[in-house]
Amino acid sequence: MNSQNQITNPRSSIFNPQFITLLTDFGLRDYFVPAVKGVIYTINPQVQIADLTHEVAPHDIASAAFILAACYRDFPRNTIHLVVVDPGVGSERRAIVIEAGDYQFVGPDNGVFSYVYAREAGIRVFHVTSDEVIGGRNSRTFQGRDLFAPVAAWLSRGLSPGALGEEIEDYIKLEIQKPKVNGQKIEGSIIHIDRFGNCITNLTLGEFPLERVRQPGVKLEFAGREVTRFCTHFAEAAGSGELFAYPGSAGYWEIAIWCGSAAEVTGAQVGDHVIGTMEHR
Amino acid sequence: MNSQNQITNPRSSIFNPQFITLLTDFGLRDYFVPAVKGVIYTINPQVQIADLTHEVAPHDIASAAFILAACYRDFPRNTIHLVVVDPGVGSERRAIVIEAGDYQFVGPDNGVFSYVYAREAGIRVFHVTSDEVIGGRNSRTFQGRDLFAPVAAWLSRGLSPGALGEEIEDYIKLEIQKPKVNGQKIEGSIIHIDRFGNCITNLTLGEFPLERVRQPGVKLEFAGREVTRFCTHFAEAAGSGELFAYPGSAGYWEIAIWCGSAAEVTGAQVGDHVIGTMEHR
Amino acid sequence: MNSQNQITNPRSSIFNPQFITLLTDFGLRDYFVPAVKGVIYTINPQVQIADLTHEVAPHDIASAAFILAACYRDFPRNTIHLVVVDPGVGSERRAIVIEAGDYQFVGPDNGVFSYVYAREAGIRVFHVTSDEVIGGRNSRTFQGRDLFAPVAAWLSRGLSPGALGEEIEDYIKLEIQKPKVNGQKIEGSIIHIDRFGNCITNLTLGEFPLERVRQPGVKLEFAGREVTRFCTHFAEAAGSGELFAYPGSAGYWEIAIWCGSAAEVTGAQVGDHVIGTMEHR
Repeated sequence: MNSQNQITNPRSSIFNPQFITLLTDFGLRDYFVPAVKGVIYTINPQVQIADLTHEVAPHDIASAAFILAACYRDFPRNTIHLVVVDPGVGSERRAIVIEAGDYQFVGPDNGVFSYVYAREAGIRVFHVTSDEVIGGRNSRTFQGRDLFAPVAAWLSRGLSPGALGEEIEDYIKLEIQKPKVNGQKIEGSIIHIDRFGNCITNLTLGEFPLERVRQPGVKLEFAGREVTRFCTHFAEAAGSGELFAYPGSAGYWEIAIWCGSAAEVTGAQVGDHVIGTMEHR
Repeated sequence: MNSQNQITNPRSSIFNPQFITLLTDFGLRDYFVPAVKGVIYTINPQVQIADLTHEVAPHDIASAAFILAACYRDFPRNTIHLVVVDPGVGSERRAIVIEAGDYQFVGPDNGVFSYVYAREAGIRVFHVTSDEVIGGRNSRTFQGRDLFAPVAAWLSRGLSPGALGEEIEDYIKLEIQKPKVNGQKIEGSIIHIDRFGNCITNLTLGEFPLERVRQPGVKLEFAGREVTRFCTHFAEAAGSGELFAYPGSAGYWEIAIWCGSAAEVTGAQVGDHVIGTMEHR
Repeated sequence: MNSQNQITNPRSSIFNPQFITLLTDFGLRDYFVPAVKGVIYTINPQVQIADLTHEVAPHDIASAAFILAACYRDFPRNTIHLVVVDPGVGSERRAIVIEAGDYQFVGPDNGVFSYVYAREAGIRVFHVTSDEVIGGRNSRTFQGRDLFAPVAAWLSRGLSPGALGEEIEDYIKLEIQKPKVNGQKIEGSIIHIDRFGNCITNLTLGEFPLERVRQPGVKLEFAGREVTRFCTHFAEAAGSGELFAYPGSAGYWEIAIWCGSAAEVTGAQVGDHVIGTMEHR
């Protein structure tokens, strides 16, 4: 049964809005985020803006890259994802526009799009040099407002990335730390800690398959602890005060504790090593 | 005079958007909220999404229930209120859709809609079992994104709640703590503390009528203090450093201090008892 | 070249939305902000709402005035800026509507619009007295929801400010602290500290011109430190651990430290004096 056919959609003949998402380290206390939004709305009042987050730790490119990777594909096709986490504002680092899969991306060429490069085929990256095209203010202090916002807004109105500058090949890719498999040992790390204190590792179901984690001897070691309980989902651990691991919604094994903060309990931090053991018997 | 007739409304013939509000304990630092929004926009790009809050303390169902109750009726008719405060994610707790008054509600069947049940007549509650209808991902870790968001989005496109599952009667209602009247004493409690440190009690104008609070002997005791000053509004207490009570905007008596935090000054916490005395002379 | 002519705009014939921005000290944990939004959407479902910030320190009028000033002009013409930072809620302070330049403003008459008065010509201010016009609830506790939101929403539907009350001339202007020039000394102050710890002064390029700051003897003294390094933009100071000043994106000299917090390093606070020295040799 496909009930979607049964659903009347009174809006099907109406123009769908173009979406722009924002991901920054600007926080929500200052005028930075609304200034960016105001500039976008002025150029394209019809656009819909959605916040990813503005609470990335200042200048934390790796964290921004993770958050972008974890949700950019949830948005409608043709969404433009604007990222301004940019320690090098005003320096010689380049401003870029990316065409990748169903999406466009705008931001600094500092590696924040590394997961996108790793996941999407047929990537095209353009170096934004033609300021006059977008008519932005010529500031080197607040490029989120004065350069990136106008670029995203004009793209949302149909401007071709090629009109902004030349295609480049030497864009910057972070080495996205992948687990190292070494016999029975898998060396990974904590790449994110969420607001609940769950510790996201970089181990995937590829390295650590669900059908094998419940065999004897399988464990994760991190922050001086051993995790030997593996669940298929979070609630399976209900009531227990024990650390457990489960396949998280971002595609990685996560370490958690029921109704508590695994990060607080263990003192784990982003970057900590996680050593997995999976015996081949 | 009704000036609304004089107001020209150039939009009156234009299709009005459908609203979905979001109330979660996801916080704003992670990819959780944008993932939910992205999924909704993908299914219904025309919808308008409004945040209630995402800063509910993790897994605090009572607090989420209060915040929902305090503002859901301020939204346009037919708004869909999506609540994801869900300690039981992935467990056997049910996902439900509610038709109540002018609104629809989507979320877990854990009591978070208890005020709605208490206030609205003609409640209908449906147990969401037909995953295939909404075509969501089959995850048990992030049901906000994988189940609740698609449900809300398809409802916003006109899907009937009955298409998602059977109507149920045994949905969960929290015992919403009501004050106990005992002669001259009324025993209530602090149900919320707002960002200004104002302490919201569960005493209403019903139990503690405005026309009687200024009689001698009337007082509120809480956190080891006595409140004997009752105001009709906040600014009536201007300049005073004294605790005072006033009928708050959520429909309950609140305890405050002028330009200060009553919670900080008194050390009051949610759940603290409030004993009202109203002598019948 | 003006490439804007080359850009196809499929939306040009579609009605552009009216924008309302919100600037409050309500925080994001409570039901205050969504209640305001719900009321606005109920009156005008077609409006687009954008948040400036809701994290102004409670009752901090000066800080709200600065943030408004720093971004209100970034929004499209005809945007209505609604400000509710209002220690005097329910008191005799007046509710006002302002027509200024390309914008309308709604809020309390407590000086929060002082920068607007200083910058725009042809200001008109109306004292809102006609509650019945807007049909708001008659609350004196939550005027953001019950008075200001309906006023902004009806303005967004085309209501004339004059329908709400009489024009007034004696609206309140804060003395916006301007630097005092005294021979070679310029006495200013820190008016804002942003999330990165950058300290925004009230010195502009007018008092402290870029072409003269690199002459010998030029310095800024604040928080017991001397700043002798002046940059044209932020990244010029890359790699240095030294305090430096640069012309910030809000139009004022700012004091910063590369990849650190100048406020933390120096202990500077809003209100601190900044003494500039510019020798005339």
